[in-house]
Amino acid sequence: MEKYEVFKFLAVIIVFAKIFGIGARKLKAPQVTGEIIAGLIIGPSVLGLIHLKGPDGAPNDIGIFLGQMAEIGVMLLMFTAGLETRISELKKTGVKALLIACAGVFIPLVSGTLLYMGYYGAAPWGSEKFYEALFIGLILTATSVSITVQALREMGKLSTTVGTTILSAAIIDDVIGILVLTIAMGFRDPTQNIGETLLMTGLFFLFAIVVGFIIYHIVKKIDVMHPHTRRIPIIGLALCFSLSYIAEAYFGVADITGAFIAGVILSSLKDSDYISRKMDINSYMIFGPVFFASIGLQTDITNLNANILLFSLLFVIVGLGSKIVGCGLVSRCLGFKGSDPVKIGVGMMTRGEVALIVAQRGLSLGVLDSRYFTSVILLIIISSIATPIILKTIYARDEAKAK
Amino acid sequence: MEKYEVFKFLAVIIVFAKIFGIGARKLKAPQVTGEIIAGLIIGPSVLGLIHLKGPDGAPNDIGIFLGQMAEIGVMLLMFTAGLETRISELKKTGVKALLIACAGVFIPLVSGTLLYMGYYGAAPWGSEKFYEALFIGLILTATSVSITVQALREMGKLSTTVGTTILSAAIIDDVIGILVLTIAMGFRDPTQNIGETLLMTGLFFLFAIVVGFIIYHIVKKIDVMHPHTRRIPIIGLALCFSLSYIAEAYFGVADITGAFIAGVILSSLKDSDYISRKMDINSYMIFGPVFFASIGLQTDITNLNANILLFSLLFVIVGLGSKIVGCGLVSRCLGFKGSDPVKIGVGMMTRGEVALIVAQRGLSLGVLDSRYFTSVILLIIISSIATPIILKTIYARDEAKAK
Repeated sequence: MEKYEVFKFLAVIIVFAKIFGIGARKLKAPQVTGEIIAGLIIGPSVLGLIHLKGPDGAPNDIGIFLGQMAEIGVMLLMFTAGLETRISELKKTGVKALLIACAGVFIPLVSGTLLYMGYYGAAPWGSEKFYEALFIGLILTATSVSITVQALREMGKLSTTVGTTILSAAIIDDVIGILVLTIAMGFRDPTQNIGETLLMTGLFFLFAIVVGFIIYHIVKKIDVMHPHTRRIPIIGLALCFSLSYIAEAYFGVADITGAFIAGVILSSLKDSDYISRKMDINSYMIFGPVFFASIGLQTDITNLNANILLFSLLFVIVGLGSKIVGCGLVSRCLGFKGSDPVKIGVGMMTRGEVALIVAQRGLSLGVLDSRYFTSVILLIIISSIATPIILKTIYARDEAKAK
Repeated sequence: MEKYEVFKFLAVIIVFAKIFGIGARKLKAPQVTGEIIAGLIIGPSVLGLIHLKGPDGAPNDIGIFLGQMAEIGVMLLMFTAGLETRISELKKTGVKALLIACAGVFIPLVSGTLLYMGYYGAAPWGSEKFYEALFIGLILTATSVSITVQALREMGKLSTTVGTTILSAAIIDDVIGILVLTIAMGFRDPTQNIGETLLMTGLFFLFAIVVGFIIYHIVKKIDVMHPHTRRIPIIGLALCFSLSYIAEAYFGVADITGAFIAGVILSSLKDSDYISRKMDINSYMIFGPVFFASIGLQTDITNLNANILLFSLLFVIVGLGSKIVGCGLVSRCLGFKGSDPVKIGVGMMTRGEVALIVAQRGLSLGVLDSRYFTSVILLIIISSIATPIILKTIYARDEAKAK
């Protein structure tokens, strides 16, 4: 491949992703679904402008390059997700949010795994099929709270107890989700036994805490001396890439975990928003569109049949229901009254980028089939559209009652 | 190569490039030279942390990937250079700046070519050696005016006749330089004859003017409706990649020409600075450091000997002298009095990124040997340090005389 050929593919991806992204936003769906659909349309399913694989089924030059760019995009997304963690906020809301988050991780995890087994038959512990089932569950764990936040902010309910609880629970839920994913992916490696996996995971987090503590204090000093300068986001990016690499290479822990932890380390910095904004520009200009479009490019619509469609439908129902039931029940037990538990459950049910990243990880590990992308995309679209509508309806009814 | 391995290399490049970039700036040298030296140090010449080539001399996986990233970096740099062209400004300063620019392109071009031939022996028209000589000349054509602008601004002389003349001449000199490079690279292609090359180059510029006119007016409308929104720089980036590809694929014209023209097309936009700033963030975070570090990575110090060092010294002298003499003489003929011609000549003698990009292009075409990188880097460092000092000295002496 000549070097300049890549520019054609990048131009096509950027243009289509932007047009469909804007289109999705106009239809009140998240922009990323537009970018995924753009990938579907320029890919082999429809226009066939970009092929990531050669005739032999192996990735071709452009597939290798875009795959690597998408991988950088994933790290930037996970790093930004980490940066948005507010440790001080978490301490305040404390144990209630933690319990809700735990329910919001484990009930969807178990429900998703059981759904797969119920649909395709039980799978013995440790078998290939078992890991596929587990990944279906793992996809359901991570809440994408941005759409809920947007909806609550519009209604002026973000700083209510319900609002802050949702926000904190969603953040803790990311951390627990990453932890569970890390352990699950470690188990998957046939060369490691369970004890070793747990040990290495533990060691990585220990390493991250020690190194994180040191780096945080160094960067904090640099940030005070040179606030809002280029070097701050550059240090952040270097930390993101370093921890991603170290996690995989030395601890056998997923690189996305490293990127996320790098973000958490810098999240208490005064300039964490500044870093986040600069990362965002890199993300939305090139790496983000390439990642989301590549999801679409890998989704093979021709594989679709009634069977997978029915599964996707059940997957969406279980995905939404398990969060509402899990988080809602725990909230009720914790003393939330009236419609508040439902609000919390609904607020926690939106899914987004991280669900896709988990699915993508499953695909590249050879655990998950690419046809489940359809299910994940459907879940993201439906949850993102439904959450604001349901929340607004509940709040409106509450206010009508109060009068 | 595992996908996560690339993060190690990116982290190393980003960290070293930033540290040496800051170091260079503290020593009043341009930041890019620091980034190049970072590449030298992490490359096979010193630490050997990154190898772009396998034992067989062919690029390895990481070499291919970083090469592609560097290529994107080059397009972003050329696009930004194009964006900074102010067509309205050019019309004002008019014919004087044009004539100075022409001298500033052709005298260094001829001097550089002759220097090579004088040093290594005459080369017949069209031979391999002739093209190497021509590329040595081509490297000398492009002025990098940013350091001169900085110096003039500090002294409050930027808006004097001398200041605006230098600025305009430097911009025109980029356009003419690109034109000459495009034609020279077209000639180099053995499958094309001279007539065809000139025809295709002409057709490309015709295409660029027509398409540019249409796109400029469409983007202008979008910019009025949605100023300062993400879509503006995204459209810019897509245009940059599209024209880079179209130039190479359909007209056989260098992709950097396409990227530069894309910048020129959007340079009259109200939001051209906004686009430029967003591109800059992409550039300085990842693509820029990768490009400049990869120059260092490709520079083989072990190849250095007295012969190439002597050549480099002569190259720097000819590089600086040809601009001073060329631009200075023409300025004097155009009526500039006293020390003004020398100021213009000195102001035009700084070189920067574009000189490196031309050298890189010569290397990837197989025309230029990588050892000449040393000469180019030396020229950039010396010209960037010398220009502000000389300008300040001349202005100080003028003021002392005036008293």
